[in-house]
Amino acid sequence: MAITLYDLAGAEADRRFSPFCWRIRMALAHKELPAETIPWCFTEKESLAPTGQGRVPVIVDDGRWLSESWVIATYLEDRYPERPSLFGGSAGRAVSRFVQGWTDTVVHPGLARFLALDVWRHVHEKDKAYFRKSREERFGTTLEAFQSGREERLPAFRQSLQPLRNLLEAQPFLGGDKPLYADYIAFGGFQWARCISPFKLLEPDDPVAGWRERMLDLFGGLARASKGYPV
Amino acid sequence: MAITLYDLAGAEADRRFSPFCWRIRMALAHKELPAETIPWCFTEKESLAPTGQGRVPVIVDDGRWLSESWVIATYLEDRYPERPSLFGGSAGRAVSRFVQGWTDTVVHPGLARFLALDVWRHVHEKDKAYFRKSREERFGTTLEAFQSGREERLPAFRQSLQPLRNLLEAQPFLGGDKPLYADYIAFGGFQWARCISPFKLLEPDDPVAGWRERMLDLFGGLARASKGYPV
Repeated sequence: MAITLYDLAGAEADRRFSPFCWRIRMALAHKELPAETIPWCFTEKESLAPTGQGRVPVIVDDGRWLSESWVIATYLEDRYPERPSLFGGSAGRAVSRFVQGWTDTVVHPGLARFLALDVWRHVHEKDKAYFRKSREERFGTTLEAFQSGREERLPAFRQSLQPLRNLLEAQPFLGGDKPLYADYIAFGGFQWARCISPFKLLEPDDPVAGWRERMLDLFGGLARASKGYPV
Repeated sequence: MAITLYDLAGAEADRRFSPFCWRIRMALAHKELPAETIPWCFTEKESLAPTGQGRVPVIVDDGRWLSESWVIATYLEDRYPERPSLFGGSAGRAVSRFVQGWTDTVVHPGLARFLALDVWRHVHEKDKAYFRKSREERFGTTLEAFQSGREERLPAFRQSLQPLRNLLEAQPFLGGDKPLYADYIAFGGFQWARCISPFKLLEPDDPVAGWRERMLDLFGGLARASKGYPV
C-alpha cells in the first residue's frame, strides 16, 4: 500500500513548496517507495490530529502516523532496510544531522528573508491571514519589511553557502558519488525557493547551482517537474 | 613501527597548536596507532621536501610521506581498516567532508581573527618574521589590526556555531554516540585556540563547550594534557 504524504500546497494544489516536505518527497523516491501526496494547507490543522501537532510533513504508512522530517526519514530507513539506504549506516546518519543543523540554522533563515512575501502571495486564500499573522509575529516585522532589500542580502547568502561549495570541489553530492539524505536536506531549501519565487538565488556558474541541477534531474526529474519558476 | 607526525610547534617545542595537526593527532589516537611527533617550525620547509610542499601535518608511515590532513586521514582509514573506523563507511566519509567545508570556511576564518596575533607571540623566534609577513599579506592588514576588536566579534562567532549546537541538542558527538573524524575536524579549531590564546571563546553553559570538554577527555585526556590555556 502506498505511503500517504501530507504535502504543503499553495492556492494551486500542485504548487508544493515546503522544504521539509521536499526532504521526504526525495527520500521516498530514493527508497523507491510508492507514495501518494495529499495537498495540505497551513490552516488544515485538524487533518493532522492523529500526530498531535499541526505541521507537515506527515506520513501515514500502514496506519502509522508520523511527523517531523528527521523522524520520518529515520523511520523509513529503519522500516525498509532492504531499500536503498538514505544514510549509508549509523555514521552517515549521525553526520547527516550536521547538514540538517546547518540547513536549518543558516540556509533556511537566509532563504526566509528572500521568500516570505512570495510565500504569502502563493498560499491559499484561507491561509493568508494565518500565514501573515504567525510569520509577522515570528519575524517581528511585516512580511514586506522582512523581505525588502533582498538584492542587497544576496552576496552574504551566497557566501553562507561556502561550506557546501567547498565540498562540491571534491565530490558531486554531499553523499559522495551519489546523493543521500544529506543532499535532500540541503536541497529542500533550494526547491522551496524554486517553487515559490522567481528570485534568482545563484549565479549560473556557482558549483551549488550545478549541484542543484543534478538534484533536479534525480528520479526522472521529480523536483524539476513540480510547479515552480525557472532557476 | 610508529608513524611519525611533523607537528607544528611554537617557541616552546611542546606547544602544538595547528588545528590541522590536531585532526591527525586525534585520528591516530582513534585508530590506536602508535605515533611519534616531531616539533616543526613554519620555516623548516626543507624537512618536508619529500612531500613537495611546505606545510604540516605531514606523516611518514613505513617510508611513505603524506601531507594534507584529509589525505592523511583517508590514508589511515584505508591502510588500517582493521582499526577503529574514522568515518564509519563511505557515506560517513562523504558527509564528513561537509563538516570540513564548514570548519575550514566558517570556524577557522572566525578563529583566525581572534588568534592571529597570539600565534605570532608564541611562534619560534626564527618564524616570527615569516609568520608576520605571510599572514599580513594574506589578511591584507597588520596582525594587530586583524585581531583588534575581537570582543566585539565574539557574538557573531558564537552565532556561527549554531549548526554544531543544533546537532548537539540531539547527540553528544558529530559521529553520534561516539566521536568520529568529523569531531576531530571541528575540534582542531578549538584546540588551536586553547593551545595558543587565553581568549575565552565560549560561554561555560554553551553545548559546544560541553562537547569540547568531552573531546578534551578523549584518549586519556590527550588534548587536555597538551600545553595551552585553561578554557
